[in-house]
Amino acid sequence: MTTAIAELAEERVVEGIYAVARKRRLRTRGGSPYLALELVDASGRIEGRVWNDVELLDGRFAEGDAVRVLGRVERFRDRLQLEVRSLEPAGDVDPGALAPAARSDLGELDGFLDFLAGELAHPGLRATVARVLDDAEVRGLMRTLPATPDGHHGYAGGLLQHTVGVATICHETAQLHPRLRRDLLLAAALLHDVGRTRELSPGPTFAPTAEGSLLGHVHLGVRLVDERSAALEPELRAELLHAIASHHDPRAARTAEAAVLYHANQLDAVAATRPTNE
Amino acid sequence: MTTAIAELAEERVVEGIYAVARKRRLRTRGGSPYLALELVDASGRIEGRVWNDVELLDGRFAEGDAVRVLGRVERFRDRLQLEVRSLEPAGDVDPGALAPAARSDLGELDGFLDFLAGELAHPGLRATVARVLDDAEVRGLMRTLPATPDGHHGYAGGLLQHTVGVATICHETAQLHPRLRRDLLLAAALLHDVGRTRELSPGPTFAPTAEGSLLGHVHLGVRLVDERSAALEPELRAELLHAIASHHDPRAARTAEAAVLYHANQLDAVAATRPTNE
Amino acid sequence: MTTAIAELAEERVVEGIYAVARKRRLRTRGGSPYLALELVDASGRIEGRVWNDVELLDGRFAEGDAVRVLGRVERFRDRLQLEVRSLEPAGDVDPGALAPAARSDLGELDGFLDFLAGELAHPGLRATVARVLDDAEVRGLMRTLPATPDGHHGYAGGLLQHTVGVATICHETAQLHPRLRRDLLLAAALLHDVGRTRELSPGPTFAPTAEGSLLGHVHLGVRLVDERSAALEPELRAELLHAIASHHDPRAARTAEAAVLYHANQLDAVAATRPTNE
Amino acid sequence: MTTAIAELAEERVVEGIYAVARKRRLRTRGGSPYLALELVDASGRIEGRVWNDVELLDGRFAEGDAVRVLGRVERFRDRLQLEVRSLEPAGDVDPGALAPAARSDLGELDGFLDFLAGELAHPGLRATVARVLDDAEVRGLMRTLPATPDGHHGYAGGLLQHTVGVATICHETAQLHPRLRRDLLLAAALLHDVGRTRELSPGPTFAPTAEGSLLGHVHLGVRLVDERSAALEPELRAELLHAIASHHDPRAARTAEAAVLYHANQLDAVAATRPTNE
Amino acid sequence: MTTAIAELAEERVVEGIYAVARKRRLRTRGGSPYLALELVDASGRIEGRVWNDVELLDGRFAEGDAVRVLGRVERFRDRLQLEVRSLEPAGDVDPGALAPAARSDLGELDGFLDFLAGELAHPGLRATVARVLDDAEVRGLMRTLPATPDGHHGYAGGLLQHTVGVATICHETAQLHPRLRRDLLLAAALLHDVGRTRELSPGPTFAPTAEGSLLGHVHLGVRLVDERSAALEPELRAELLHAIASHHDPRAARTAEAAVLYHANQLDAVAATRPTNE
Amino acid sequence: MTTAIAELAEERVVEGIYAVARKRRLRTRGGSPYLALELVDASGRIEGRVWNDVELLDGRFAEGDAVRVLGRVERFRDRLQLEVRSLEPAGDVDPGALAPAARSDLGELDGFLDFLAGELAHPGLRATVARVLDDAEVRGLMRTLPATPDGHHGYAGGLLQHTVGVATICHETAQLHPRLRRDLLLAAALLHDVGRTRELSPGPTFAPTAEGSLLGHVHLGVRLVDERSAALEPELRAELLHAIASHHDPRAARTAEAAVLYHANQLDAVAATRPTNE
Repeated sequence: MTTAIAELAEERVVEGIYAVARKRRLRTRGGSPYLALELVDASGRIEGRVWNDVELLDGRFAEGDAVRVLGRVERFRDRLQLEVRSLEPAGDVDPGALAPAARSDLGELDGFLDFLAGELAHPGLRATVARVLDDAEVRGLMRTLPATPDGHHGYAGGLLQHTVGVATICHETAQLHPRLRRDLLLAAALLHDVGRTRELSPGPTFAPTAEGSLLGHVHLGVRLVDERSAALEPELRAELLHAIASHHDPRAARTAEAAVLYHANQLDAVAATRPTNE
Repeated sequence: MTTAIAELAEERVVEGIYAVARKRRLRTRGGSPYLALELVDASGRIEGRVWNDVELLDGRFAEGDAVRVLGRVERFRDRLQLEVRSLEPAGDVDPGALAPAARSDLGELDGFLDFLAGELAHPGLRATVARVLDDAEVRGLMRTLPATPDGHHGYAGGLLQHTVGVATICHETAQLHPRLRRDLLLAAALLHDVGRTRELSPGPTFAPTAEGSLLGHVHLGVRLVDERSAALEPELRAELLHAIASHHDPRAARTAEAAVLYHANQLDAVAATRPTNE
Repeated sequence: MTTAIAELAEERVVEGIYAVARKRRLRTRGGSPYLALELVDASGRIEGRVWNDVELLDGRFAEGDAVRVLGRVERFRDRLQLEVRSLEPAGDVDPGALAPAARSDLGELDGFLDFLAGELAHPGLRATVARVLDDAEVRGLMRTLPATPDGHHGYAGGLLQHTVGVATICHETAQLHPRLRRDLLLAAALLHDVGRTRELSPGPTFAPTAEGSLLGHVHLGVRLVDERSAALEPELRAELLHAIASHHDPRAARTAEAAVLYHANQLDAVAATRPTNE
Repeated sequence: MTTAIAELAEERVVEGIYAVARKRRLRTRGGSPYLALELVDASGRIEGRVWNDVELLDGRFAEGDAVRVLGRVERFRDRLQLEVRSLEPAGDVDPGALAPAARSDLGELDGFLDFLAGELAHPGLRATVARVLDDAEVRGLMRTLPATPDGHHGYAGGLLQHTVGVATICHETAQLHPRLRRDLLLAAALLHDVGRTRELSPGPTFAPTAEGSLLGHVHLGVRLVDERSAALEPELRAELLHAIASHHDPRAARTAEAAVLYHANQLDAVAATRPTNE
Repeated sequence: MTTAIAELAEERVVEGIYAVARKRRLRTRGGSPYLALELVDASGRIEGRVWNDVELLDGRFAEGDAVRVLGRVERFRDRLQLEVRSLEPAGDVDPGALAPAARSDLGELDGFLDFLAGELAHPGLRATVARVLDDAEVRGLMRTLPATPDGHHGYAGGLLQHTVGVATICHETAQLHPRLRRDLLLAAALLHDVGRTRELSPGPTFAPTAEGSLLGHVHLGVRLVDERSAALEPELRAELLHAIASHHDPRAARTAEAAVLYHANQLDAVAATRPTNE
Repeated sequence: MTTAIAELAEERVVEGIYAVARKRRLRTRGGSPYLALELVDASGRIEGRVWNDVELLDGRFAEGDAVRVLGRVERFRDRLQLEVRSLEPAGDVDPGALAPAARSDLGELDGFLDFLAGELAHPGLRATVARVLDDAEVRGLMRTLPATPDGHHGYAGGLLQHTVGVATICHETAQLHPRLRRDLLLAAALLHDVGRTRELSPGPTFAPTAEGSLLGHVHLGVRLVDERSAALEPELRAELLHAIASHHDPRAARTAEAAVLYHANQLDAVAATRPTNE
């Protein structure tokens, strides 16, 4: 019976089916080769070490594969680590299904996203957002990709959850501050991280694509929205693209909406990651 | 008939009763003395200049006084300015009533504040917040002081409005992120700027008190909450004080709630002040 | 007879036909209105002041117009300034022809640009660069726009001159460092500022377009090159776009060629603007 | 016979009674558990490692205990380290007496402190300082706590020594600069780090208290002095609190005395810690 | 009868003999030329303005000259300013004698400097310091030059006073911290600003020399001490030069003595300039 | 037969004669001593580890010696490392000849340097450069020292290559920008790093000298050029020294030539070191 990674406890021997998110072949200072793995399943991540039969085992699986593992959980530098005793490929298991997943209900989040998009009154912004978020491929990727590969919301569906979070905060802020152009702000919030769908590849590795690592999600998002907003009035289109383009750079923001988006993004990221008590 | 400052238009001769928020006696490069004023009323602020009878008029009124003014509105470096032709003290008018005021309904904001305080489930935090916000003096000052003397929410009642804004955003964020300690975050948000009631003096000048200019609203707020939270468990009290103490310094924040408060404060300030299109 | 701006000398009464690059209506501290102008011709720029008949004259011309001016050159805070005595529209003169212009021979610079583009050996990069630089509209704008609206190379043709400068330095650097991918570096240098052709409007004002002020030349350049590089292998295309995208942000540069382009751009800008002895 | 830590030499087998300032249970890369200790006595600190009987020994002692150790001193990455061969609790020894101690004569430092406090001519400041420094508990803690837990003056009595150092430098600076308010500066120097008595717990661990890690010594010092300075004129009290509050933040300093205190604190810290030749 | 600048009072007509530290010919916005002067005497500095007979008067005196002035003191932007009515060269007065001067007794400061130099026990450092400070030209310049042209100790003899201040603080710090190499620190303190004697020209202007403005007092001081320290052991000489070379750059400091000198320099500068209450 | 370091391949047993650039004696976590070496030859660098007979072997050779090594190449943390099986001193080999060397033809680089020096038209600058670069000792050191001990151009002759690189870029920049003083810029480029000849000792270690580590190559270069430029006009000499003095500090640069030198130095360093694709 397989044990979920989130339930692994120190000093216990466990068996499980996990996906290999990272694999590196290293040597100890004493010269012996070993494998350093990052193992994942829907419940979380754990470091793994293979000390024996390295040559043999290394040939049997690659990054991104699902594997059946028997090992013992140890504590190393305040973190749990799995000392692998035996390991074999689990060819019958879909490794994508083993990517770390959101604890929230993705269906509910999808509903929130639709609700927020439905709040848009401006026909052009509403249509532009629809051309992106009603695209089944984009929408599917939002349910399977993280918001960041190894930071906040770093699990499948994190992209959807973070998008809902930022858009909700922006929606609330627009109600508190009627001077803000609500529809511009909300549309920018709903689309701000859509470039992640072009930057990252599917789980369990979520590795950046070649294009993704060179161009980054900000530029890729601007490009994607640019392609689908030709029908918008030019000035509003430039404002929408501007808010997306500057959502990681507060000094570049030239409108209140762009600056608010920057801070809402920071707020949601910090709320998801900072320890509640260090 | 008096014209509200917000309605002054270029190239017009106007008459009005305003309060003097700043008065400085200067000389032109050519050597003539003049008075540089900042005039305010509930609707806004305008620079004023007195070019004639300077000696005489200067003796008739002080900063913080209400004055009856006749003058002409001019544009100087892209801003309106009032060229004062005649000016006399308006002793029958309460200058405090002429401080720039919130455009929102203060009663409604008070209701929001009570609603948010009522959301607190933890008895100790609820009692601590009540000991501060149910204090009639504090509550009165929140309706008459600004959140900052010359930045965001810089008008009477701005303190109340900003407090409601930050607390609303924190409340929403706690719903999006159930891992956050909602009551700690909400209590800290409700109290984060209460030090302003000790730092600033009443309108129309909102000038810092002697103590306020040396100790600042962060320290004064921590002190005020410290004095009224003796009944709280020590660790939770330290966490509450910590969040207030670090709400302008993100690197000092050691808990997620303190970091979220920092960003919510930034968000509400930016939403209130950044031009919507520069 | 008209005097070129570069030849204006202190304490002299002059007559000339200039274009109005900026016009603002201001008031002196004493309350009198005046016009603050920036006047330009092919030889340079000078501040102008209109003290008399302001109302009348202000209605006669707009920013971007050509005007016939009679005035006296004065020194104000270490810079020359033209005190305008009379001014009338010069409707028969093309104001675009009065934009500040490069002192270099634009034909020769065009030849250098073609030479550098001809050095590209890689067929895809060569074709991509040709699709941009052989476009008569783009090429024409490079001869008539500045590299920056009010910084280095701030005159018509400055964009062409700066492009040749950066590409020449990159070409030389690639010869010194054979490990660099010469064609990638050279192509990026030739295209790095092409977004200026979308960001700026023609002289004499060189004012940013609405889109330009929100999206900036970096993004607009990436978009323009993106549209014309579909035939390039995807990875090389991403590398080219990456170098253009990060040419103002050294920390974003992930390749040696992008980092070299950043520094070559800095070098050419500094060489054009820093005083030779402060 | 026990060997003082300061006298331990490489490649020697030694026996000694030390206190355990830190204890962590780790595992080697090869998977074996070991204990990483920081051992201290009055003469200094040394890292310790327990490789054998880890399970057994780990249960026998805790952080803060005194232990009797037999081991061999080795060099590891340029620092000495004690390889522990056997270890047993030393229940008859007071671990507090084994905290690293000042090399200076604490009695002499106490005399200097009294001399400096006696230099205060202003009755209010003199009384305020006396209410803090004549408090036997505070004074006792200054002799047993460090100025910083792991930086400059990081030994028992370091707090007393650093306080004398900063106050001496401020006293000298006030003589060089008669414009400074000597008594304000001297009082602030004498009290600037008194918050450490609330932030840190006794040796040998000097660990921060729960309140200390959240509120820090600056705020705790302000609070302590606030509580004991009610008799001081309000403005002077605010100036004193201001200097203490800003002694780690030069930009916050609004008076010369606060700025001087900041630099005197830096000077004494650097003089105590920077290597004389790196 | 001449009035000392320090005694000038608002709204008074005065007569005096002052030196011209700065002279610039400007024009008002209205186009009239005027002279902007900085006038100095031993007691201080004041801005002056000449509004009439500008052409005529401008030809009569230069920067650095002594002039006899009749004028009226006015307040402009919170500072006093002298509106000059008549002005004539005072050829019989030595302008150098009118440079702003130290309020301290220079003879006494000279005595302190000799005392501190006499404290050096190390023969080589003692001899090196003597070769610099016993040089009558250097010593004379320390009495007549400021420590900075327009910052702290900005008056004749300020260089001597600041040198005594920094060396006194370093001497005290070495007593508090016996681990510091006292003689190295004290020698570096005594020589740290000696490059000012090569960087600045005599009063009343204290203008930088051509070499001074390009090379700066740090490099010039290192060069001067380098030339006179050939007899010192090479390593100690390098340490001395290093401390002087890094006294404005704390990150460059590689020895405790260099770091202490940096902070002592900061401390004395701040103690001399920060307002005691802003 | 010896294998060049650049040709070492993973998992191979090799034999070679290398120089020891660094040697440290460490202990594994398990307590066993080992030697950590940096081995070099003309083709490159590799980390080495000696696990056996440590005591014995450690006594046989020192940093800077040539050794004959038998070992096996392993990969450790993505880098190759030589596990040494046996090692003996190679007393008959000149270790200096084993320093990492430029891949370029040093004779050709010498020719380029002479060509660039020959381009100087100004007799004083030409003579000053000749007094430095025609000095056989300096010139010899440029062929045997690196430009930086462990950064860009970190091999014997790197100093010559980098000097040619920066001077070539400056020469090109001066042609693009005729307003620059070409001879000043070119002379400064040719001399900018000559202080390295005083800062670094010969290979294979390239360790800084005692003076070098305290004073650094910038100051030592200024001193060397200062000593050899007495015949130059004073102002030009100061400008030359200024450009050398500020070539690592762009904010200190006060002339266009100094600023251009800074950027040319950055450009050549980045072109030599940044990975072409990270």
